[in-house]
Amino acid sequence: MASKPYSYKYFSVHFVESLKYVVHVEINRVGKLNAFIEPMWFEMRELFNQLSSDSSVRAIVISGAGDKAFTAGLDVKAASKAVSSQQGNADTARRGAYIRRYIHRFQDCISAIERCEKPVIAAMHGHSLGFAIDLSTAVDVRVCTKDVRFSVKEVDIGMAADIGVLNRLPKVVGNFSWVKEVSLSARLFGAEEALRVGFVSAVHESKSEMIESALQLAGLIAQKSPVAVQGTKELLNWSRDHPTQEALRYTAVWNSAAVQTADISAALLSGLQKRTPTFENL
Amino acid sequence: MASKPYSYKYFSVHFVESLKYVVHVEINRVGKLNAFIEPMWFEMRELFNQLSSDSSVRAIVISGAGDKAFTAGLDVKAASKAVSSQQGNADTARRGAYIRRYIHRFQDCISAIERCEKPVIAAMHGHSLGFAIDLSTAVDVRVCTKDVRFSVKEVDIGMAADIGVLNRLPKVVGNFSWVKEVSLSARLFGAEEALRVGFVSAVHESKSEMIESALQLAGLIAQKSPVAVQGTKELLNWSRDHPTQEALRYTAVWNSAAVQTADISAALLSGLQKRTPTFENL
Amino acid sequence: MASKPYSYKYFSVHFVESLKYVVHVEINRVGKLNAFIEPMWFEMRELFNQLSSDSSVRAIVISGAGDKAFTAGLDVKAASKAVSSQQGNADTARRGAYIRRYIHRFQDCISAIERCEKPVIAAMHGHSLGFAIDLSTAVDVRVCTKDVRFSVKEVDIGMAADIGVLNRLPKVVGNFSWVKEVSLSARLFGAEEALRVGFVSAVHESKSEMIESALQLAGLIAQKSPVAVQGTKELLNWSRDHPTQEALRYTAVWNSAAVQTADISAALLSGLQKRTPTFENL
Amino acid sequence: MASKPYSYKYFSVHFVESLKYVVHVEINRVGKLNAFIEPMWFEMRELFNQLSSDSSVRAIVISGAGDKAFTAGLDVKAASKAVSSQQGNADTARRGAYIRRYIHRFQDCISAIERCEKPVIAAMHGHSLGFAIDLSTAVDVRVCTKDVRFSVKEVDIGMAADIGVLNRLPKVVGNFSWVKEVSLSARLFGAEEALRVGFVSAVHESKSEMIESALQLAGLIAQKSPVAVQGTKELLNWSRDHPTQEALRYTAVWNSAAVQTADISAALLSGLQKRTPTFENL
Amino acid sequence: MASKPYSYKYFSVHFVESLKYVVHVEINRVGKLNAFIEPMWFEMRELFNQLSSDSSVRAIVISGAGDKAFTAGLDVKAASKAVSSQQGNADTARRGAYIRRYIHRFQDCISAIERCEKPVIAAMHGHSLGFAIDLSTAVDVRVCTKDVRFSVKEVDIGMAADIGVLNRLPKVVGNFSWVKEVSLSARLFGAEEALRVGFVSAVHESKSEMIESALQLAGLIAQKSPVAVQGTKELLNWSRDHPTQEALRYTAVWNSAAVQTADISAALLSGLQKRTPTFENL
Amino acid sequence: MASKPYSYKYFSVHFVESLKYVVHVEINRVGKLNAFIEPMWFEMRELFNQLSSDSSVRAIVISGAGDKAFTAGLDVKAASKAVSSQQGNADTARRGAYIRRYIHRFQDCISAIERCEKPVIAAMHGHSLGFAIDLSTAVDVRVCTKDVRFSVKEVDIGMAADIGVLNRLPKVVGNFSWVKEVSLSARLFGAEEALRVGFVSAVHESKSEMIESALQLAGLIAQKSPVAVQGTKELLNWSRDHPTQEALRYTAVWNSAAVQTADISAALLSGLQKRTPTFENL
Repeated sequence: MASKPYSYKYFSVHFVESLKYVVHVEINRVGKLNAFIEPMWFEMRELFNQLSSDSSVRAIVISGAGDKAFTAGLDVKAASKAVSSQQGNADTARRGAYIRRYIHRFQDCISAIERCEKPVIAAMHGHSLGFAIDLSTAVDVRVCTKDVRFSVKEVDIGMAADIGVLNRLPKVVGNFSWVKEVSLSARLFGAEEALRVGFVSAVHESKSEMIESALQLAGLIAQKSPVAVQGTKELLNWSRDHPTQEALRYTAVWNSAAVQTADISAALLSGLQKRTPTFENL
Repeated sequence: MASKPYSYKYFSVHFVESLKYVVHVEINRVGKLNAFIEPMWFEMRELFNQLSSDSSVRAIVISGAGDKAFTAGLDVKAASKAVSSQQGNADTARRGAYIRRYIHRFQDCISAIERCEKPVIAAMHGHSLGFAIDLSTAVDVRVCTKDVRFSVKEVDIGMAADIGVLNRLPKVVGNFSWVKEVSLSARLFGAEEALRVGFVSAVHESKSEMIESALQLAGLIAQKSPVAVQGTKELLNWSRDHPTQEALRYTAVWNSAAVQTADISAALLSGLQKRTPTFENL
Repeated sequence: MASKPYSYKYFSVHFVESLKYVVHVEINRVGKLNAFIEPMWFEMRELFNQLSSDSSVRAIVISGAGDKAFTAGLDVKAASKAVSSQQGNADTARRGAYIRRYIHRFQDCISAIERCEKPVIAAMHGHSLGFAIDLSTAVDVRVCTKDVRFSVKEVDIGMAADIGVLNRLPKVVGNFSWVKEVSLSARLFGAEEALRVGFVSAVHESKSEMIESALQLAGLIAQKSPVAVQGTKELLNWSRDHPTQEALRYTAVWNSAAVQTADISAALLSGLQKRTPTFENL
Repeated sequence: MASKPYSYKYFSVHFVESLKYVVHVEINRVGKLNAFIEPMWFEMRELFNQLSSDSSVRAIVISGAGDKAFTAGLDVKAASKAVSSQQGNADTARRGAYIRRYIHRFQDCISAIERCEKPVIAAMHGHSLGFAIDLSTAVDVRVCTKDVRFSVKEVDIGMAADIGVLNRLPKVVGNFSWVKEVSLSARLFGAEEALRVGFVSAVHESKSEMIESALQLAGLIAQKSPVAVQGTKELLNWSRDHPTQEALRYTAVWNSAAVQTADISAALLSGLQKRTPTFENL
Repeated sequence: MASKPYSYKYFSVHFVESLKYVVHVEINRVGKLNAFIEPMWFEMRELFNQLSSDSSVRAIVISGAGDKAFTAGLDVKAASKAVSSQQGNADTARRGAYIRRYIHRFQDCISAIERCEKPVIAAMHGHSLGFAIDLSTAVDVRVCTKDVRFSVKEVDIGMAADIGVLNRLPKVVGNFSWVKEVSLSARLFGAEEALRVGFVSAVHESKSEMIESALQLAGLIAQKSPVAVQGTKELLNWSRDHPTQEALRYTAVWNSAAVQTADISAALLSGLQKRTPTFENL
Repeated sequence: MASKPYSYKYFSVHFVESLKYVVHVEINRVGKLNAFIEPMWFEMRELFNQLSSDSSVRAIVISGAGDKAFTAGLDVKAASKAVSSQQGNADTARRGAYIRRYIHRFQDCISAIERCEKPVIAAMHGHSLGFAIDLSTAVDVRVCTKDVRFSVKEVDIGMAADIGVLNRLPKVVGNFSWVKEVSLSARLFGAEEALRVGFVSAVHESKSEMIESALQLAGLIAQKSPVAVQGTKELLNWSRDHPTQEALRYTAVWNSAAVQTADISAALLSGLQKRTPTFENL
C-alpha cells in the first residue's frame, strides 16, 4: 500500500527519520493562518484514509505550519459563499436537504481522523480557533504550547457548531459546566485553563519543544505492538459510547482474534530479555 | 407571549436593565434559607416553561435571595409529611405506584430547567445542600462563591436521591471516584474542591461579585444569535446522551433548518465591520 | 447468610473492630508483589459475591498486603501459559471461541466488584500496575499513597486490555486525552497526576494513613441507611450508562419500593434529635 | 380523583353499565367524519391524562361516533391554515423552531394515549385515514370492522408523517416490507390485509359487533388485578424499546414493589375457590 | 467436558442415537403436568450451562414428558409460599430488595437457555401455560401440536410477568396488538392462532410427529459447521437488540476470527463433491 | 448531476419511459445466474450512490436479468479465493484485521442501498439465494414470483452470514422463530411461506407480471412529493432502530425544515382540484 506517495497540496507529510513508523502531518496554508477552505477538508479525509491503511504508519502527529497558528479555523469568505450558494434553490425543504448532505460530508472529513486506525496526536499552538477545536476533539491526544489561543468560535458566526465539537467535547472533557460556558460564549481560553479542565493533557514552553515531545510520545507508541495499539484506540472509542457490559462483550469478541497474535510472546520474551521487541506491520 | 407577567410567590424575576434579554431569577423564601416546599417545585416548573417560550428572554441566571443560602434543600418537615401521607394506603404496590408518579412529577419540575431552551447559569452561595445539587446539575453553567457549602445530602435522610443528582452528576463531573464519594457519604465540600473536580467552572470572592459576573456571562451569551445559542444548548445535551455517530447525524438534521437563518450573514457582516450584530428574537 | 466463614487463600478478610459493618479485604500474595494468578480471580469473584449477599456488611476497603504493592498485575508466567495452551487447538475459529469464553469469565471476576451491592473503596500503594487498574476502575472510590506507581500496562505485553480498563476508564476519568495517552503508551504515572486528572479522589502520605482514612470513609458510609447507600451505588452506575431521561425513570421505579423504608423516618427523627440513627441490615 | 366530570366537546365518555371499570370513549364530530381539528388534540390529551389518573378506570375502548368513520384524519382546511400561519415569520430558522415545537406538542397529544396507564383498545370502522393510523399505533390493541378503509395518508399531502405513525408502525407490525409500501404509497388497505400483516388482531362483521366485542375484552381485562394489568402495559412498552437484558432488569425493579401487593394472594385464593376476585382501585 | 454425566432429577436428557450431536431434553414431572417448582429452575440453568459448554452437543430439542403438557407453568402452591415467605421481613424496602434479587435469579435460570451457545427448539403440546411461554420465548425455534393450549397466564395470579415473557414476546412476534391482547387478558390461544401471528413456526398433528420433526430439524442443523451455527445464533440475538449499523460492526469483528476456520473450505469442498462434510466439535 | 451516464458492466439501468422518475436496475450476469463477484459489489455501491444523488430519480426497482435467477448468491469460486488469499499472512491477528476491514467494505456495498435516499423495491424470481437475501433485506419493499426459491445460505458454506442478513432479517420479519429456523438450517423456502411470514409483501404469477407491478408501485411513489417520500424512508429506518420517544424527537427536528416545502400547498391544492400535482426534483 505504501507505493502511493503522500503528495498533498495543503498538508506536508514527513516520515520522521529517527522515529520509525512515526508520521508528522503539518497543516500548510501558512499565509492564511492555516485557515481551512473546502478542498482542504477533502484532502484531509483522503490523507487520513491513506495513513489508516498504510501499514508502515503506526503513530501520527498533526500540527500547524508556521509560527502563528495551528489553524485559525474555517476561512470566513469561503464559508459565506457556501451559505449564499444555497439561496439559489427556492424551496426551503430542498435547501435543507442540500445543507444536511453538505454537513454530513463535512463531518465525515473530520471523522476520518477518528476512524484512522492509528493514534493521532494534535500539537496545537497560536491561533487554534473554531475548526481547530472540531478537528482536535477527533484526535486521540491533545497537547499545546503555553501561548495557544483556543475558542469554540461557531456561535460568533450565528450558528451552532455542526461538524463535531458539540458532539465530542462533552465526551473528551469531564466538566460540563465549562464545556457549556466556552461553547455558548465563544470566549478565548488558554493553555493553563485547557490543562486544568482536561482539554489537553500537556502544555509546553514553545512550539519546537511541543513538537519534539509529541513526536517522542508518538515514537514511544510506535514501538509497541500495532495489534495492541490499534485495538486500544478502537476499544476506548467504542467504550466511550456504550454501556459497560456491552463494551466488555465487544472487547472479548475483538480480542478473540487479536490475542492470537505472535506479538504477545514476542513482547513477553523481550520483556524477560530486557530488549525492545520488533513487531510486523499491521 | 410576553404579555403574561412574571408573578410568582417564591421566585423573584428581574429583567436586567443594562443587559438586554437577560433574566435574573431569585429563589425567594429567605426566612427558611430558601428551602423548597412542594408549591415551589410547581412554581419553578411553570416559571421555566414561561421563560423557555418567552422570545424576549435569551439567558437566565438563577441564585438564592438573602445572605445565607442558595437553598438549604427540601424542607424536612414537608418531606416527612409526604412520606407519612402514603401510609394511608394499605397495599404496598398501590403505595409504590403513588410514589412512582409523585417522583416523576417532582423530577419533571427540575427537568423543566434542562428543557428550557435558553441557557441557565446557577450562581450558588452559602448553604447549597441536597435539592440545591439536584437543581444545579440541570442547569448549563455552575458558579459559586468561595464560602459555599455543598452537600449531596439525600443519604442522610435514609434515601437514594431520586430527582436528578444521581442521574446527572456523573455526566457533569468527570471524576467518578469523587462523585461516588460525596454521594455515598453526604459530606460537605467547598468551593475549591468543587472547582478542582469540575462541578463549578468559576469561584468568586463574594455573592455580589458572583452575581455580577454571572450576569455578565449571561449578557455576553444574550448578545449572540439565539438560533446559535439555543441550538448549542440542545446539541450539547443531546450529544452527552448519545453515541458520537448518532449525535453527528442529529446535529446535521437540526442545522438543515437552523443554518438557513439570516443570523449567519448578519454575524459575518458585523464581524467584518467590527460591530455588535443584532438578532431577531426566537 | 453470615454463617459461612470468610476463608480464602489469597485474600485476608477482616471485620474492622471499631467500625461496625466495615470489611477490610487484603490482596495477599506478598512474596509475589500480590501479582494475580488464575485461582485468585475466581476467589475474588466468590469473595465479592459473598460480601454482596452478607447483610452484615455495609462498606468494603480493598488494599494490598505488604509494603511494596497493591498488585503488580497479572503474573507474567501464568499469562504466558494460558496463551500457549490455546496453541493446542488447530482451528483458529475454535481457538477464538475458547479465548472469547475465557475473557468473559475473567471479565466477570472483576465485574463481581461492580455488581457487589455494597460500596467498595480501593486503597492503592506501591506497584499498582496493569490488572491493578482494571480492578480499581470497577470499585466505587479510589485513593492512593503519594508513592504509588500506576500503569495501564497491557500494550507492553502486546495486547489491548480486555478485562475492563478500556471499558471503564473513559467513564471514571473525564479527560479522554489523558486516558488515551496512558493507555496507548503504558507509561508510569504517579499520585499527583492521578489526583489532578481525577483517577483517584485523595492522596495520602503513607500506606497506614491511607488505610486509616479509607476505613474511616467506609465507616462513615456504613453508618448511613443501607437502603440509601446501596440504592445510590446502583443508581449512579446505571445513570452513567443511560440517557438522562431513561435514568430518571429507572430511578423513580427503583425508589417506588425503596422509599417505603422505615429508615427515612428513623433518619429524620435522629436528625431532629441530633443522634446517630441505627438501621436494620439489608 | 373521580370528582371532575368527563365533560368534553369532541369526545363522548361513557362508563359502561354492565362492565365495571370500563370506559367507552367516542370521537364525536360526526358531521365531519370525526376529522380532527386542533382543539380536539388538546382535548384528547386532557381526556387521556384524566383517564390515566382516575383510579375507577381500568380499561378503555376508543371508537368513532356515527356510521361512516373512526376518523377521516386531520381536517385539511385546518392543516393548511397552520402551514400558512408560519409564513408570517421571515426567518427560516425561526419558522423551523416554531414548527418543531408545534410538532412536539402535537406528538405529545397522541403520546398521552401511550402514557395512559390503563390499556386502550381502538375499535375502528369506515374511514380510518391518516391521523387514525397515528392515533391507533399508540393504543394497545387494535380491532376493526370488515368494511374499514385504512390509509397512511401523509405522503399524499406532501409530507412525511411526523406525529407517530412512522415511529410506531415498524414496532407494532413485523412486516417491514408492508410498512414501507403502505407508508410510501398512501394506498388504501382493508380489514383482511390489516389482519394478515398484524396491524389489527381481530376483524368483525359490523360496527356494533366490534364495539360489543371490544367492550367485552375491556371488561375481561378490567376484572384482573390493576397492579398486574398496568404493570403489563408498562413492561411491554418498555421492553419493545430496550435490549432484553436491560428490560429484564427494569422488570425486576418494577416488580420489587408490585409483587408485594395483596392482589396476588387474593387472585390465588379466588383461583382455588373458582370465583372472580375483586381488587382495590389503583 | 463430556465426562460429567447428564444426571438431573426433573429433566431427562437423551443423546439421540440416529442424529449425531442432537440432544433431546424432556421436562419430567409428569404427575404434576410438568409444573415447575424452584429446584427445577436451578436444575434447568445447570443443565443448559452444561449443554452450552459440552462440545459434543450441537442442537437441542426441549419438550414435556407425558401426554398432557409441555408444562402447566409454575406450581401455584410453591409460588404462594415464596410470596408469603417475604412477609417475614418487616421493612418494605428490604422485602423489595429480597424480591428483586429473587426475580433476577429466576430470570437468570431462563436466560441460561438464551445464553446456551447451541440452538434450542421448543416442541410444545397440551398445557403450555404461563412459565411455558416465558421459557419458550428464550429458545430459538418454537413448534407445537395442533392441540396445544397456550396462555400468558401471569395477570391471572395478580402480577405482571417478570421472568421474560413481557421482555421477549414483543421481539419474537411482530404483532404488538396481539401480544398486548393475550398478555393483558391471559386468554387461551391455540396452535392455528399461534402459527398465524408467528409465535410458532410450525404446527404438527400429534406429539410424536412433532418430536420427530423437531429432532430432524435439530439433526439438520447439527450437520452444519458449529462455527457457522453458533455464530448465527449469537449474531441474530445481538442484532435483534441493536441498531443495524452497530450490529454490522459487531458482526464483522465476530467473523474476523470465525471465518479463519477450516470449516469453510471443508464445506465448499464437500459442496463441490456433493457429500456431507464433517466438522470438528466446538 | 444527471450528466454522468449510467454505464455499468454488471447492471443494466433503464429510465422507464412511461413512468417518470422511475429507474429499473437489472443485475446482469445472466450466464452465471447473476451470481456476484467482487467487482459487482463495488459497482453496486457506486450505482446506488449515483441513484441516491441523481435528483431526477424518485423510485427504483431492482431485479435479476434472465429467466432463472434474481441472483444465485456469491460466486463460490471467487469466495474461496478471497478466503485462501488470507492464508498468506502468518499472524492470526493480522489476518483477522484484514478480514474485518474486508467485511466492513463488503457490508458497505450493501448498505449503500439502505442509505440510498430513494425507495428501492426488490422484485425477485427463480434462484434468490444467500447474497440475494442479504441484498433484499436492505431494500424497502420486497416482492417475488410464485416460483421463487429463497435460502439464507451462509451456514452451508461454514460461516455465519456477515454482510447484513442476520442484522436486518430480525427487523424486517416479525417472526423470530422462523428467522432462526431458516438462518440456522439454510433450507429453501418459497413464495407462499415468504408472504405468510412477511418477508415479501406480494407474490406474482410470473416474472413479467411482477416487474410490471413493481414498476407501477414505483411509479405511484414517484408521483408523490419527493420531500415526503424521502423523509418517510429515512424516518421509518431511523425509528426501527431507536426508542419511540427518541424517534419522535428526531422526526420533529427533521420536519422542522421539511414541512416548510411548497409541496404541501401544491399537494393540498391538487387534492381539492382532483388532479395529480407535480413536484420539483430533490
